[in-house]
Parts: sequence; C-alpha cells; structure tokens
Amino acid sequence: MSLSKLGEFALIDRFKRLIKLDKTVFKGTGDDCAVLKFDRKHYQLLTSDMIVEGVDFTSGTNPYLVGRKAIAVSVSDIAACGGIPGHCLVSLAMPRQTKLEFVDNLFRGMREVAEKYGINIVGGDLSRSRQLTIDVSMLGLVKKKELVLRSGARAGDFIFLTGPLGGSFKSGHHLKFTPRIKESRYLAENFNLHSMVDISDGLIADLGHILERSQKGAVIYEELIPKNKYALSLKDALYSGEDFELLFTLPQDAARRLLKKQKGMRFFLIGQIISGPKKILLVDVKRRCRELETKGFRHF
Amino acid sequence: MSLSKLGEFALIDRFKRLIKLDKTVFKGTGDDCAVLKFDRKHYQLLTSDMIVEGVDFTSGTNPYLVGRKAIAVSVSDIAACGGIPGHCLVSLAMPRQTKLEFVDNLFRGMREVAEKYGINIVGGDLSRSRQLTIDVSMLGLVKKKELVLRSGARAGDFIFLTGPLGGSFKSGHHLKFTPRIKESRYLAENFNLHSMVDISDGLIADLGHILERSQKGAVIYEELIPKNKYALSLKDALYSGEDFELLFTLPQDAARRLLKKQKGMRFFLIGQIISGPKKILLVDVKRRCRELETKGFRHF
Repeated sequence: MSLSKLGEFALIDRFKRLIKLDKTVFKGTGDDCAVLKFDRKHYQLLTSDMIVEGVDFTSGTNPYLVGRKAIAVSVSDIAACGGIPGHCLVSLAMPRQTKLEFVDNLFRGMREVAEKYGINIVGGDLSRSRQLTIDVSMLGLVKKKELVLRSGARAGDFIFLTGPLGGSFKSGHHLKFTPRIKESRYLAENFNLHSMVDISDGLIADLGHILERSQKGAVIYEELIPKNKYALSLKDALYSGEDFELLFTLPQDAARRLLKKQKGMRFFLIGQIISGPKKILLVDVKRRCRELETKGFRHF
Repeated sequence: MSLSKLGEFALIDRFKRLIKLDKTVFKGTGDDCAVLKFDRKHYQLLTSDMIVEGVDFTSGTNPYLVGRKAIAVSVSDIAACGGIPGHCLVSLAMPRQTKLEFVDNLFRGMREVAEKYGINIVGGDLSRSRQLTIDVSMLGLVKKKELVLRSGARAGDFIFLTGPLGGSFKSGHHLKFTPRIKESRYLAENFNLHSMVDISDGLIADLGHILERSQKGAVIYEELIPKNKYALSLKDALYSGEDFELLFTLPQDAARRLLKKQKGMRFFLIGQIISGPKKILLVDVKRRCRELETKGFRHF
C-alpha cells in the first residue's frame, strides 16, 4: 500500500507507535507541541514544522516570505499551547544553484520573525536537495497553570476563533500571517482556557482534533463563522486550512467576560461544545442542522 | 553568486549572522550542539541534523538503515558535547508513492536507535517531497562540569580518536555506525577533556574546527592515524568524512592515564596540539613534515 492510499492521519497513527514516553515527558504527540517536564513552575514545549517548496509554498514565492513562514508556523504551535517561544534550530536543504541573494532574503525573513518574538536562533543544519526544504524546531516555556491542550474541552464550553478564515493560499495569508502570541498571552493569563489548537489543517479538521482528544461533540453556526474577503465560500472557510488562527474553548462565564473585554483583539464566538459523540453539527442560516465530515488538508 | 561558488562554510558564516543570543543561551552555533542554560548543575543541549536522499544516502538504501542514521547522527552530536540524549522530534518529507512497508522499516530503524539510548521520540511533522528528507532535532542534558566544546584545546594536549577512519560511504559505516555515547560517558566522567568534536566532515576538517575555535595548531602522525579496512588511502582516512568517531584532546597526564585504562574501548593517540597558527602538520612515515589543507566534505 502506498501513502496516498493510506492517508496522512493513518500514517501519523503509525508514527505514534514509535513514541516512547518516560516520566520526563508530560505529553507526547497528539497536540501542537510535545510537553516536557522542566522545573517546578514550568513545562518546556517542543515542536517542529517542515515546509517544502511546491507543497507549502510555490517555487516563485518571495524567499523573504518563505523564511518568515518557516519560523512563524512553529511560533503558532507554541501559542496554541499557551506558551512563549524561546529558542529554535533551522535545518535547511536547497539546490546547489540557489542564488546567494535568495538565501539572504530567506534568512532576513527568518530573522525578522525571530526577533519580533524574542527567539534565539541557536543553530541548525545545511544540506542539499532539489526542493527547498526548511525544518524549524522550536523550544518554548509555559507556566504549568497556563498550559492548554487539545484535550480539555467540556460540554457547554463556548468555541472561539481569533480571526476570519478562508482563502489563505490565494491571499498569501499563509505566508504573511501574524502568529497569535499576543492573543494567546492575553487568554492564558486572564481566562481559564479549556482547550486550544491552531488552524493549520482547516477549521473542521482542527476542531475535530479537539473533539477527538476531548471525546466531545460541537455545534457551530454558519452565520457566526468569520470569513475573510478571500474566502470563496463557506466550504473554503471551513476546510481550506493554513489560517493559523487560534481555535479555543472557554467555560461560559469566562466566555462572557472575554466578549466584554476584547482589549483591541478580535475573538469570534462560533459555537458550543456538546457532550457525546465526536461529531460536528452545523446550523445554517435557515436554522437547519446537518452533520459535517471532519476532513481537512492532506499531504498524501 | 550561487551557493556552489560560495561554498558551505561561507554560507554557514552568513547563517551565523542570524544568531541572536540572550542570556539564556550559553553557546550558540559553532559547536556540535547549541548549549542552553537549564538548571544549577546542567546545561541543555539542542541539535538538529537533516539527511536527504541522494546526498546522505542513495535511493536504494534499506529504509531501516536510513531511519537508524537519522537518529544516530544527532546522538553523535550530543556525545561530542559530553551529554546524554533525552528527547527528539522527527520531521519527515517523502514522495506520495512511498510504500507503507518502506515507512514501517524506516520507523523501525528510528525506534531501535532511540530505544537503545533511552530517547523519547515525542513528536514531529510529516510532509510531502520528491526526495525522502528527514530532519531530527534532539534535546540532551550535560552536567556543567562535563560539557566539552570545540574551543578548549590547549597547546601540549594529546589528540585522540575513538576508532579507525575512512571508506565510510563504501562500507556502509555511515549508516550502521554506533554513536560514541559509551566512550563519551567514560571520558566525560573520568577525564578532564579539553575539546571534542565528532567526525562528520572528515578528520582534517573537524580537527580544523577544533583548531579554529581554540586558536591553536596541530601535529598529527601518519603512522598513528587508524585506518579501517575500507579506507582506500591515507587521503581517504583524512578527508572523506561520515566516520562519526569522536576526536578529542586531553592534557598529557590524563592522556597517559587513558592509554593505561581503555576499559575495553579503543582510543587512538594521533598527535598533539601546538600553539600558534591554525595549521595542521602531518609527519609522514619517513618523518617528513608537511602542512595539510583543511578541506572536507562540502554540500555545495
């Protein structure tokens, strides 16, 4: 059987069998970051993201934006766990004929994002390949009491988004997005977050991850889903992915408090967690309810 | 200018300009691992290594051995700093038509090495690419007093190797090598190591790294260089690389002690650190002395 038949999520499941955990690991795979024991008050977060030419960006993409994205996707993972990024390594493979100007612009994009979030680029590796490939591994810290996982959603929680969805590839948003560190900080410091994830595979797929981990269901409302101007359709907003907004759930009292104090940020209430099976119900503008398929972006 | 003209080491120098260090970083690039502050007694080590099909292994290579190598090269980096590996992430990009059996064997190779050294594989990333590409990032710990860098060689130190060199690609050693954790442990716990590096770019290039960082020179003796049976020539043993043996320097009294107590391991004395310029002098079997060019494996 080839990977295209098996599918990415089945492959990830196979990969998980690799996972050996000793007592120094608080949480292995299955979340945005691995969570490692650190000191009395903190966990250490560890994540890696690989971007590949022709898959995550086209070969004509401005290298400055490619460098930006390479760092920003890992920052988004740290944000999704309520943490603060600290250090990263950059492994880079590129063709022999790559121009120096291209590399300098790539590095400039990386450096700008790293500096903005106070991240030390402490090393990496260089290799040669036909497609430009960048893997960034990032370390972060999170206070134990501020750690948020995908697995904590409870029935009755309100479901929120930090921004509008859709058309990310078309608009270039997937290259230029701002990782939601500011929002994550505000939420983690001031609210009792039950669960959080960043939208990389698409709203429905990533909400599906929260439901799967939390063993819950969800109802979302078509009229509440924020679509940006590049979203071609509701379907695009629900499934296309690479939005890098945060999706999180809050108990109702905290939700009401958040809606009153948005502090210049934007938080969109889109639905509610329900008990029972891991399905997602969509209430459309005519108040009809239907169950959605939890599919999303697939690499294979 | 393209990368093939610029060369890998000039590119690494450009990359280093990226490096921003705050007080939580003890040592950034320029060594086998980045060294981060951790607790009162330990530093944390962080390293990443990317291997690419057609560069670091051929497309026909047994996937079990590819998986093995992907993990082992990072273990070797941790060993070169005197540390103990703890956690790793695996980022993997591969073609859509990759067979499941291939992936299972790849994972088996990774798991075996990880288990042997007590390493938790805590997550990673999956993507699609034309060439199989694996980047492993690894965390380790080292006692502060046991940390060894490339920069500590002193004039008069004796220079040692943990094993014979040469013919690594031809013999398959670059896929099957045993990372020198056992040797590193014995040395770090019992001897005052002044400097250490693992041989990935070739003896002369990696000794060059020690000399560059330590601002010293070296004399090595042709008759003392241990060549394995696959080494085609002295030149092959000196320059070909991917041996993954440790190269280290010890003050003379410790060196004498080591030569008496090898504890079933093998330590080969090959020469001595000298003061002054960063050149490497080779004394041949006829006692003639010549200066060597410090070149090694180049990706570009």
